[in-house]
Amino acid sequence: MLQPIELSQSTRLINHGPTVMVSAEHGGVANVMSVAWACALDYAPSRLTVVLDKGAFTRGLVEQGGWFAVQVPLAEQAEMVMAVGSQSRKNNPDKLADCGVELFYQEGFGVPLVKGCAAYLICRLLPEPHNQQSYDLFIGEVAAAWADDRVYAGGRWLFDSVPDGLKTLHYVSAGQFYRIGSGLKVE
Amino acid sequence: MLQPIELSQSTRLINHGPTVMVSAEHGGVANVMSVAWACALDYAPSRLTVVLDKGAFTRGLVEQGGWFAVQVPLAEQAEMVMAVGSQSRKNNPDKLADCGVELFYQEGFGVPLVKGCAAYLICRLLPEPHNQQSYDLFIGEVAAAWADDRVYAGGRWLFDSVPDGLKTLHYVSAGQFYRIGSGLKVE
Repeated sequence: MLQPIELSQSTRLINHGPTVMVSAEHGGVANVMSVAWACALDYAPSRLTVVLDKGAFTRGLVEQGGWFAVQVPLAEQAEMVMAVGSQSRKNNPDKLADCGVELFYQEGFGVPLVKGCAAYLICRLLPEPHNQQSYDLFIGEVAAAWADDRVYAGGRWLFDSVPDGLKTLHYVSAGQFYRIGSGLKVE
Repeated sequence: MLQPIELSQSTRLINHGPTVMVSAEHGGVANVMSVAWACALDYAPSRLTVVLDKGAFTRGLVEQGGWFAVQVPLAEQAEMVMAVGSQSRKNNPDKLADCGVELFYQEGFGVPLVKGCAAYLICRLLPEPHNQQSYDLFIGEVAAAWADDRVYAGGRWLFDSVPDGLKTLHYVSAGQFYRIGSGLKVE
């Protein structure tokens, strides 16, 4: 079940470097893409960066709509993550259905979210035209965040006690992911 | 043993989201800090981003010297990673020795590197004053990269066959890291 996460703690949802999916909607059109290059940028206000290639359909929705969501998928969703990262809605209007994506919305936000993920961060685009044009680099300010209490509770990930399917995904290249592994605490 | 990595493949060294250490040197002064917020930005030219807080001593060395290195530490170095991320050279001129850091240099580059890491990316700073001042965001262009063939060979990480101490570290908060886990290939 999704639980709201304080904005000041929302960077914890991506701090360990998972591969994410970015979703956006504009003019009644929604899309989702996979993004390995996403990173926290600030705690207060909570901000993050994502790299969105000029060829990506979702990038246009972000630029036009001014909002996007970053969601942290689980290992059990790996085939979907690979599929939405490989197909483009430019060539296939049925991309989301073909990739097995089911969308939902949280109250108060018109940003589509992908069912079944570990965590969600809804972001308002901070327009930085030079970064977007020169580096494909987009900055978002987190407006709301949630995590699934199967895998994140009490401000902590539960990776040491969940099954492999509920671990986050960390992409390398050519279809090769690693799941997050065991915890290590330095006092 | 360190092996050179083609620049076009160097983003693979950080693509899975490890916590890194950033090192730099200027005017005969070297320093190292831990950075959880590092991310690939482009393949060709190979570029990456790091977030360096205004309070960080290393940030000044990067700004003045124009070069820095991103290195990917191993789980067996977790205490050192925590220590160089907690102490500042501003308060302790002996920080590196106290944290157990041993530096070395690769031929042709005056950028200090930390012994014992999985991978190294030496970067030239691409000055972007607005990003640096407003967001603490620094962009580097990778000039050379190496990986330790105990953990990375033939263009691939060897995480499925190395012991826990040779896995990469993924920081969350308050001393809590996770090691990278098992592989998952989507064809």
